[in-house]
Amino acid sequence: MPKIEFWYEFASTYSYPACMRIEKVAADAGVSIEWKPFLLGPLLYEQMEIKDSPFNIYPVKGKYMWRDLERICSHLKLPLQRPDTFPHNTVRASRIAMVMTTDPQFQAHAADFSKGVYLANFGENRDISDEIVLSEVLIKIGADRNTIIEQARTDETKEKLRAQTDEARQKGLFGSPSFVVGEELFWGNDRLEQAIAFAQSQP
Amino acid sequence: MPKIEFWYEFASTYSYPACMRIEKVAADAGVSIEWKPFLLGPLLYEQMEIKDSPFNIYPVKGKYMWRDLERICSHLKLPLQRPDTFPHNTVRASRIAMVMTTDPQFQAHAADFSKGVYLANFGENRDISDEIVLSEVLIKIGADRNTIIEQARTDETKEKLRAQTDEARQKGLFGSPSFVVGEELFWGNDRLEQAIAFAQSQP
Repeated sequence: MPKIEFWYEFASTYSYPACMRIEKVAADAGVSIEWKPFLLGPLLYEQMEIKDSPFNIYPVKGKYMWRDLERICSHLKLPLQRPDTFPHNTVRASRIAMVMTTDPQFQAHAADFSKGVYLANFGENRDISDEIVLSEVLIKIGADRNTIIEQARTDETKEKLRAQTDEARQKGLFGSPSFVVGEELFWGNDRLEQAIAFAQSQP
Repeated sequence: MPKIEFWYEFASTYSYPACMRIEKVAADAGVSIEWKPFLLGPLLYEQMEIKDSPFNIYPVKGKYMWRDLERICSHLKLPLQRPDTFPHNTVRASRIAMVMTTDPQFQAHAADFSKGVYLANFGENRDISDEIVLSEVLIKIGADRNTIIEQARTDETKEKLRAQTDEARQKGLFGSPSFVVGEELFWGNDRLEQAIAFAQSQP
């Protein structure tokens, strides 16, 4: 079965629609998804020397981005509320996602958790840096909240997330969402279909 | 007839495919195009404090952009040669385009000139800051080269291009290509179809 890597940072606006729709697009095309949460912040700092979202730093572009996202979400019938805090710190959410995407006993819930976090952030204006909010997402999807949160706090998980962010850097990522198929990188919600078609075309 | 404003800076990579395909996309949809050359440099400097292309300043993103453009051009069967100099100074080309897009006696050739400049820059690796190269483009499309170049050098044309760049700033532009329909701004070659559909939907 052809495969696509889906790289995502929870603070990323355009990753919200990408995350909400990737399962259907991939399933329709017979392509399987490898879920790869990572931290974009360190890469943006290394590459651009910025410690905030480019959409905050460059307000003219930022204003456009929110309008563009509004049109995209409206088209996809996804709820959108501009978060009071943007971007949120996503380390906790990413560590939980790291556990769920790599530990076989939780993998069945990994996609639902990631979608739940994006919905909380951009659809419901909730503080996704807060462990209570993340815990509620876990409860809602019927996952084993206590075991997962405990495992997310371990040094092993912290190290796994660091290693995954290193892998993102090594693969040339500079934004989210990104899709990787073999040596080819595709960036942006706009490129999902092209990445999926490329995966299908691979022997 | 529904109308779309097509805003373009000749140094912009993604504006190359946009410029080459906009006429067909718009004609198929029954939408007319207003050609709006402008200078992106001053806006990038004001908004980002940069004096070079973001793709040069941020090489990780830049590397991706060239690969992405390669895939786009290959799909559209457009020639692509990475220019030895990037970005070129586009003031002369933009002044000529300003003349051709606004003076009724030259408007019939305006689209061909703009396509010719993009082809020279990104398809043939020619120096589009050079008046001789621009002159050759004018000859190739059968335009009245001498009159146009003379008019492009006037203070009136310089002022017109400044005013058009002011209009771009006022409309919230931060990149090229951009498409404006009424109050709505769409940015990027990717958004052409969406902008055209929006123009069609307007009363």
